Amino acid sequence: MADDSAFSLKRLLLGKPIPSHLAHHERLSRVTGLAVLSSDALSSVAYATDFILATLIVAGVEAFRYAVPISLVIASLLAVVAFSYRQTIFAYPKGGGAYIVAKENIGQNAGLIAAASLLVDYTLTVAVSISAGVLAITSAFPNLDPYRVEICLVFLALLTVGNLRGIRESGQIFAVPTYFFVAIISALVLAGLARYLLGQIVPVETQLPPEAGKHPLTTFLLLTAFANGCTAMTGVEAVSDGVPAFRPPESKNAAATLVLMASIGIVMFIGITTLAHVYKVVPNPAESGISQLGRAVFGGQNFAYYLLQAATTLILVLAANTAYADFPRLASIVSRDRFLPRQFMNQGDRLAFSNGILILALFAAILILAFRGDTQSLLPLYMIGVFISFTLSQTGMVLRWRQNRDPRHFGGAIINAFGALLTGVVLIVVAVTKTVEGAWIVLLLIPIIVALFKATRRHYDHVASQLTLKGYEPQPRVHNTVLVPIGGVQRSVVEALRYAETLSDDVRAVYVDVDPAGTEAVKRDWETWGGRVKLVVLASPFRSLMEPLLEYIEQVENERSNDYVTVILPEFVPARWWQHLLHNQRALLIKGALLFRPNIVVTSVPFHLVK
Amino acid sequence: MADDSAFSLKRLLLGKPIPSHLAHHERLSRVTGLAVLSSDALSSVAYATDFILATLIVAGVEAFRYAVPISLVIASLLAVVAFSYRQTIFAYPKGGGAYIVAKENIGQNAGLIAAASLLVDYTLTVAVSISAGVLAITSAFPNLDPYRVEICLVFLALLTVGNLRGIRESGQIFAVPTYFFVAIISALVLAGLARYLLGQIVPVETQLPPEAGKHPLTTFLLLTAFANGCTAMTGVEAVSDGVPAFRPPESKNAAATLVLMASIGIVMFIGITTLAHVYKVVPNPAESGISQLGRAVFGGQNFAYYLLQAATTLILVLAANTAYADFPRLASIVSRDRFLPRQFMNQGDRLAFSNGILILALFAAILILAFRGDTQSLLPLYMIGVFISFTLSQTGMVLRWRQNRDPRHFGGAIINAFGALLTGVVLIVVAVTKTVEGAWIVLLLIPIIVALFKATRRHYDHVASQLTLKGYEPQPRVHNTVLVPIGGVQRSVVEALRYAETLSDDVRAVYVDVDPAGTEAVKRDWETWGGRVKLVVLASPFRSLMEPLLEYIEQVENERSNDYVTVILPEFVPARWWQHLLHNQRALLIKGALLFRPNIVVTSVPFHLVK
Repeated sequence: MADDSAFSLKRLLLGKPIPSHLAHHERLSRVTGLAVLSSDALSSVAYATDFILATLIVAGVEAFRYAVPISLVIASLLAVVAFSYRQTIFAYPKGGGAYIVAKENIGQNAGLIAAASLLVDYTLTVAVSISAGVLAITSAFPNLDPYRVEICLVFLALLTVGNLRGIRESGQIFAVPTYFFVAIISALVLAGLARYLLGQIVPVETQLPPEAGKHPLTTFLLLTAFANGCTAMTGVEAVSDGVPAFRPPESKNAAATLVLMASIGIVMFIGITTLAHVYKVVPNPAESGISQLGRAVFGGQNFAYYLLQAATTLILVLAANTAYADFPRLASIVSRDRFLPRQFMNQGDRLAFSNGILILALFAAILILAFRGDTQSLLPLYMIGVFISFTLSQTGMVLRWRQNRDPRHFGGAIINAFGALLTGVVLIVVAVTKTVEGAWIVLLLIPIIVALFKATRRHYDHVASQLTLKGYEPQPRVHNTVLVPIGGVQRSVVEALRYAETLSDDVRAVYVDVDPAGTEAVKRDWETWGGRVKLVVLASPFRSLMEPLLEYIEQVENERSNDYVTVILPEFVPARWWQHLLHNQRALLIKGALLFRPNIVVTSVPFHLVK
Repeated sequence: MADDSAFSLKRLLLGKPIPSHLAHHERLSRVTGLAVLSSDALSSVAYATDFILATLIVAGVEAFRYAVPISLVIASLLAVVAFSYRQTIFAYPKGGGAYIVAKENIGQNAGLIAAASLLVDYTLTVAVSISAGVLAITSAFPNLDPYRVEICLVFLALLTVGNLRGIRESGQIFAVPTYFFVAIISALVLAGLARYLLGQIVPVETQLPPEAGKHPLTTFLLLTAFANGCTAMTGVEAVSDGVPAFRPPESKNAAATLVLMASIGIVMFIGITTLAHVYKVVPNPAESGISQLGRAVFGGQNFAYYLLQAATTLILVLAANTAYADFPRLASIVSRDRFLPRQFMNQGDRLAFSNGILILALFAAILILAFRGDTQSLLPLYMIGVFISFTLSQTGMVLRWRQNRDPRHFGGAIINAFGALLTGVVLIVVAVTKTVEGAWIVLLLIPIIVALFKATRRHYDHVASQLTLKGYEPQPRVHNTVLVPIGGVQRSVVEALRYAETLSDDVRAVYVDVDPAGTEAVKRDWETWGGRVKLVVLASPFRSLMEPLLEYIEQVENERSNDYVTVILPEFVPARWWQHLLHNQRALLIKGALLFRPNIVVTSVPFHLVK
């Protein structure tokens, strides 16, 4: 009964299961593929410009003249990386995540480092995207700012339940907001440029942060601004990871989607950075740059402005969805190689990977709570993982070419090598500029995760060697001594005795004598109910119930060497959950004590209470 | 091995077990009895005067002239109640707590109300005493005040471990501080009076609280001050509850201890209240009245002053120990009547009631955290429980006399009746004056606890009626169908199959077909390893592993009506704890799903991993 109600709650929340022969109906078209897989990449334009400006401001507003050049460098980099990943899509039509590419072409360790980086990165994507999405809300409604963390957690919970329901619904839900965001950002950029060309610009009214202009404009500062702006590149790998999710021809559809995504992203990023420069936007923790631009271009907090903020929130919160698709998929692949517990390999009823989704949600919630939902604080942790995986993935593609030496793919290999070089340089820049601000956490975490991967694999290898049937000679054990520990004679005990009698010709009930009156009563009842079960009464000088029992079991084990010893425990099954607290404590204690004894089998005979 | 190390940790913390024939060596003499059982009663003089003054101050310093008269009324009341409990000691030499006296002489409901009141009261005793003890520390060292809650929790933890070790050690530990406190308070009172008689009084320098003199001096205020002062009476029942803990002749020793305790308490309480009046003490949340008196009488924060504060802290923190003895004892008695789960009846190895101690510590910790270790905030909750149990206990004694009508005990009955009347009046005063300030929590809690008592008892009664062997006709079930769900053929599975073969002539391995290659492999292996076990392969259109299995089990159940169905699960026993995370998930799922199916027996065949 309790079981049934649990099942129906699951059905209500997660929908009906899908038979496996229908699985290909879940595949993505280019239109839904762009929506599902590009929200991470596209949404990053909502914060990348802010990160550049927030870095430059410490050298004063004049430093903003470097924002547009920096954004152009990043956009070129993004184009190179996107073309590099396009090679991967054709080389790995079954999905070429950094883990697989690095593992196959560089080696196991590189693959594990890439996997650890990506798992960390996906978790941060969820935390950063949701936090930035909520900033779009609190920019429009500053009095909601005190509830920032709570709002973040509500979005996280909605995404988690949505993803547990399955991927096709995700596509349908997410198609609308992605295109809505692209449309409204295009409108913003076009309207902003039109105003600029007509000379109708009203610069944003905003306050300078207190640290503005306190530092000189050093090369290190420019590099930091560049590193922070590279958040615009996050998510570009999502399409190449998800090739098999596309409709056939998978590679072609995926490649077209990738190119489209990168083009849209580049145009929006350069457009917004240019506008921010022209409208003299100064982002601060209470209001995002997009919100300031919206006020200036649309002329105040009107309907268009609120649409912009709503679209930004939606795409950002839903960008986290890319990670909800990627994290469980990667965990499942790593788990298939036995570097992660096999639970991550289980597919839920709806073809979604429930355990991965839940773990991702848990760690993202921890990040949101630890950093109080503040995007700027999470940022230094964010890019290390991304660029480690970029670099490893593209290096892997270069090494792959070196093995094949297929002249048709020479151009692709050159692009991959160039991409690997550039992202490797960015990785070094990010590591150098961000380590003291928090990137050290990730630099510490990745080796720890790799070590856990290896420990898990080592354990499963050990287990496999212990489970192999090669050269296995089963011990001939034919006799079974059955023990039934009892605390008195009652219906549950008699039922256990009758069951025990079917198992063996040597069944013994074991009673620990703690008061003589009770012992006499048991002996009396035995004449009626004992059947062919022998009653063994144990003395207990310390009034302990467990120790005499455990000693007796040990003694029985030594009686015969080729014996099974079975311990039968009546288990009360209460009619209501709270009644569990009132029963079975002794059975649990006995089970716990016997768990580490080899060659002892424990059997629970249920006794169902009706009320 | 893990088991052994758990045992030795327990030994280290809790000491060696004691055989039952040595149990009487644990008994208390008058000297240790006073120390163990009176710390609650005696220590309350450390805060009772403060509570009177803190109430009166809202009507201005002039209202302090009522403090000494109020304390005299309370002292008389204390004397009456002590003599009333002296009757109980002789009438109930096996321990006459309010629960037993009320249950036997008034009725079951009265007994349960008394028991609920006392359990609440004991928990509050721990929280209030520890908080007041820590106030003595922070009075002397004000810069420790921010760590008040943490210090409280440290003392709570020390007490808990100490009590889990057993009662005799408690006696030895607690004898020194009790007598130390009595000595130093006597010194304080004598020195203070000497200074007064010699005319050398220097009034305390202190600040008036902001609410001083803001209210008129009403009768209600005087009644509130009286109610708050009645905290001096808490703990007086402890000796009569603990009669059997004394050395023989138990009643005589206990009665003498009770009279001694009441006398000392009365003298100290009147002495301190008089001194407080004379030295113009005004207690505030940051410094206790005793601390102010200490400074004034001993002439500053010198060695004598620090000794006084240390003694106050020690007796107060250790006063909580009375509750550590009483709570588990009462819980055990109530549990023997099946109104509480039977876990409270278990005696630990060291004759202490471990579960009761742990529950008490848990709830006291919750109170300390909820009220931030502030004695004044906890106070309104405190006295309701005490005076309910006082009133019920003494009313019970009167009714008992009405049944016996033994003329020798007529005088005693009159004392009991007088005590019942007085404590009943105080109960009404407390309820009227304190309800809005927080006593409503306790007034709500007591009926809830009584309802839980009754639900527990009702459940155990239902169970007993289901377990009775009267009229029980065991169903003749002789055949046992044994199922072994498998996920492949490996050593652990083969061992489970060999075990299963000893149990029945109908053993079937059940394999769910989720991919054809795996199924072929299993069928191939079966030729070598299957033995006389039949292999059943189940189709799974939804790729679910559980649902086909559960359906098949249901089908097997319907094959024969007089059948046992045994499900055998190989259970991995890992060598290290964290490896549990990597195994047995499917076995757990299957067990959970089968838990509510009647007539199915689940057996775990352990497979021990060596690394």
